[in-house]
Amino acid sequence: MTDPRIARLSLNQKTVNRCTVAEAVDGCAEFGIPAIGLWREPVHDIGVRKAAGLVRDAGLRVSSLCRGGFFTVEEGPQRRAAIDDNRRAIDEAADLRTPCLVLVVGGLPSGSRDLAAARLRVSDALVELAPYAGERGVRLALEPMHPVYCADRGVLSTLGQALAIAEPFPPEQVGVLVDTFHVWWDPEVFPQIERAGSRIAGFQVCDWITPLPADVLLGRGMMGDGHIDFTSLRAAVDAAGYSGDIEVEIFNEEVWASDPREVLRTMVERYLGTVCGPPHQTPEGPRRPGG
Amino acid sequence: MTDPRIARLSLNQKTVNRCTVAEAVDGCAEFGIPAIGLWREPVHDIGVRKAAGLVRDAGLRVSSLCRGGFFTVEEGPQRRAAIDDNRRAIDEAADLRTPCLVLVVGGLPSGSRDLAAARLRVSDALVELAPYAGERGVRLALEPMHPVYCADRGVLSTLGQALAIAEPFPPEQVGVLVDTFHVWWDPEVFPQIERAGSRIAGFQVCDWITPLPADVLLGRGMMGDGHIDFTSLRAAVDAAGYSGDIEVEIFNEEVWASDPREVLRTMVERYLGTVCGPPHQTPEGPRRPGG
Repeated sequence: MTDPRIARLSLNQKTVNRCTVAEAVDGCAEFGIPAIGLWREPVHDIGVRKAAGLVRDAGLRVSSLCRGGFFTVEEGPQRRAAIDDNRRAIDEAADLRTPCLVLVVGGLPSGSRDLAAARLRVSDALVELAPYAGERGVRLALEPMHPVYCADRGVLSTLGQALAIAEPFPPEQVGVLVDTFHVWWDPEVFPQIERAGSRIAGFQVCDWITPLPADVLLGRGMMGDGHIDFTSLRAAVDAAGYSGDIEVEIFNEEVWASDPREVLRTMVERYLGTVCGPPHQTPEGPRRPGG
Repeated sequence: MTDPRIARLSLNQKTVNRCTVAEAVDGCAEFGIPAIGLWREPVHDIGVRKAAGLVRDAGLRVSSLCRGGFFTVEEGPQRRAAIDDNRRAIDEAADLRTPCLVLVVGGLPSGSRDLAAARLRVSDALVELAPYAGERGVRLALEPMHPVYCADRGVLSTLGQALAIAEPFPPEQVGVLVDTFHVWWDPEVFPQIERAGSRIAGFQVCDWITPLPADVLLGRGMMGDGHIDFTSLRAAVDAAGYSGDIEVEIFNEEVWASDPREVLRTMVERYLGTVCGPPHQTPEGPRRPGG
């Protein structure tokens, strides 16, 4: 019997990184997970049409497509190629009937130390892409990334900054993605979630674990294994009016090496125990993961 | 002949981590570096009085003492011990005649996910320590740390947050330390440096390098080896009214394994080429380190 509280749970495909789209879709079906967040590369492996069919036949929603972005380079052929690729990503999102294309904006261009210029180019890219997305019913979701990735992956470092960039655009064209891993440390996270309101295009969860593994890209933990208070962040996102899917997205070599069915079982259990935890809890007692 | 621009340069002892106080002091004298930032552990190795004598005899200033802090735990014996240790650190700073005790506030207490409570305890600790410091002519310098350290080392994550905590106290008792490594990514860093004004109690430089080494604690690079635009940050700190020492503080296994004289030689060269670089530079061209 499926716990009714998983009605908003979504499996981001990255959590079972070694699975094909078909395997991930089967896993969702088996565990009663009603939505999936897809990545472009495994979708391309079988073709967008086939992926869309698999998802539809299983009765799943596609909560998001990951990812567009990487458009912080100066004007020139490389930038044009990036913008074109983002248009294709928008088309794919439309074909997959997902309301949300996640954007990881990119780091500092090679050899540059001009962070302000790189950040301005994010706004410039949106000027080109937002109307195109809007016409296809796809919303671009700016994902602020943990500052540890500022140099090489995402110059968008806080939710406040993402909102400042999103706000000149219509909310149905440009929103923000709130990922607990990226924002949990931010002293302004709660007021900024409130400010975000209907701009919240997606909510992803995974934990901040210590010590960080050698490859900081793979330092994301299963909920309950780290330091993040999910209940408060989820309550804030809900209070801001977000009622969409909650994706579990975990980059972690150990998780990836595990049996995917075990990963899904744990994920559902931890989701119920941490993200769906009681709204008011003892301020300081350690929470039992999966309890 | 010593370049007159090194008049504000200070060697933070951590940069030559394997040197004793005497060796570090000798190195400063040899390269014409007029100030040194000391760490408590090597100072304890020879005693505070002896360390103070070595520095005085070499005609050096002590730009700062590292470090107090680590007071985010709940009330109880562990917290009392931390507060007592901070009082001793203040006494040592006074004995060393440094105007600045650097505070690394500490991470989440073990088992806790209550970041807000940990942050409040920083303010509580200052209520106890600030007057004690003020009476001894020592200023407590709150160091916002890169969010990568939020869980396990420093829950103070931005300059704005550090200022909000510092501002209720007299500026001569509580200031902030600006370290390029910790703040460079912050979209608010320039307005917050301006806001800081006379609260700036110290300025430290080192670079953000990629890829980060396996131990993120040792991921700090020599200026010019990474992504930080030092000229702009230094200009902002100067414009805010800071005219004190500029410490080079590098945690890096490779630097530590090098001949300390070579490290000092490179440090001086890079300081002149990056931190003292021309105030207006091509927005995007890569700067030649040490040029």
